[in-house]
Amino acid sequence: MLFDENAIKGFDKGFRVNFINSLSGFKSANLIGTCNGNDLPNLSLFSSAVHLGADPALLGLISRPDSVVRDTLENIREVGEYTINHVHAGIYQQAHQSSARYPSEVSEFEVCGLTPEYFKGFKAPAVLESHIKILLSLEDVIPIPSNGCQLIIGTIKTAIVPVDALYESGSIDLSSQKTVTISSLDRYHNVTPINQLSYAKPNSKPSIVTEGKVCVR
Amino acid sequence: MLFDENAIKGFDKGFRVNFINSLSGFKSANLIGTCNGNDLPNLSLFSSAVHLGADPALLGLISRPDSVVRDTLENIREVGEYTINHVHAGIYQQAHQSSARYPSEVSEFEVCGLTPEYFKGFKAPAVLESHIKILLSLEDVIPIPSNGCQLIIGTIKTAIVPVDALYESGSIDLSSQKTVTISSLDRYHNVTPINQLSYAKPNSKPSIVTEGKVCVR
Repeated sequence: MLFDENAIKGFDKGFRVNFINSLSGFKSANLIGTCNGNDLPNLSLFSSAVHLGADPALLGLISRPDSVVRDTLENIREVGEYTINHVHAGIYQQAHQSSARYPSEVSEFEVCGLTPEYFKGFKAPAVLESHIKILLSLEDVIPIPSNGCQLIIGTIKTAIVPVDALYESGSIDLSSQKTVTISSLDRYHNVTPINQLSYAKPNSKPSIVTEGKVCVR
Repeated sequence: MLFDENAIKGFDKGFRVNFINSLSGFKSANLIGTCNGNDLPNLSLFSSAVHLGADPALLGLISRPDSVVRDTLENIREVGEYTINHVHAGIYQQAHQSSARYPSEVSEFEVCGLTPEYFKGFKAPAVLESHIKILLSLEDVIPIPSNGCQLIIGTIKTAIVPVDALYESGSIDLSSQKTVTISSLDRYHNVTPINQLSYAKPNSKPSIVTEGKVCVR
């Protein structure tokens, strides 16, 4: 069914929010760990992490102007560091709860039942329960004039990845770690591999690749 | 296992590319349809679509400087329009093939076995075989100084969605449409729902929501 601009404008606000939030496809599910200058931890769910480049290793996050996650950006600006922690099927309900509008002085770790984990030389807390966690330093914050969002860009300083999830190629087997994916605002999903495909070249069809892990247990 | 900045810098280039590309979590899988001023169609696979806002309805895409998708951004700038088409399990191999480095004068639709579909009053081609397709007009292109990427921002003009995939809340049941998700550069996955959770509030735990579709067949 075709929905034109007028039809979309005519949707009730909540319906439009859910509809538009579904259109980009499946989204990553990450908990962003920060702290303010007084070391008060903060945790917030983001579904907008985006790969920007491998060298330098950069990740982006979209911060919305009207969002409950404003503490996140303020903390990142203040401390210059943050963590990205994959949400897996065992903690998705706790992760979802972190999106509630808690006052700034509340640690979402505590009220959501997740544990801050600290790494040497790094102020921002990671999530102990996450299987894959990334420590980043702030690189840039780019304003998006069209709607007041901001693109937060971070440099990957450290990555914590279960060694048995690591393929020989360097890819990480995210589904083995039960990393979930989000659609719309509130729909959580499990992910199962179809295939890995070979590097695409003009004069051949992609073939299915099978590769081993770095560490076989 | 902890990989610090030196460990990551020490990875072989290909290993690092795959590793870093895995860290953001699961990614959307979209075919971007464009044409140049002479109506030559172009198709390219992107895993970087990101929701920017529902009102105005905006989506972002990351365009890499060194990418084979440079035709995509050039066409979008020239024509001011493009389409985003969800990749489903029935066309993921054709979609992957569109990432091969074809010359500008080749239509990836043709060589990959996908069909351009045109909508009245809109120059850029959509993908007939996709179940969910979005027609956008270019809103802005924002340079990312850190690595030369660009954030392409588009306004959603029209969305084509199977009516039986539409929930009463406005969310779209992407897994019913076999929309896939990508991890790393080349790993395709099926997605199955776990749950929808209620809107998170500070003093209650999230509950599991069950909602119906707009149209029951």
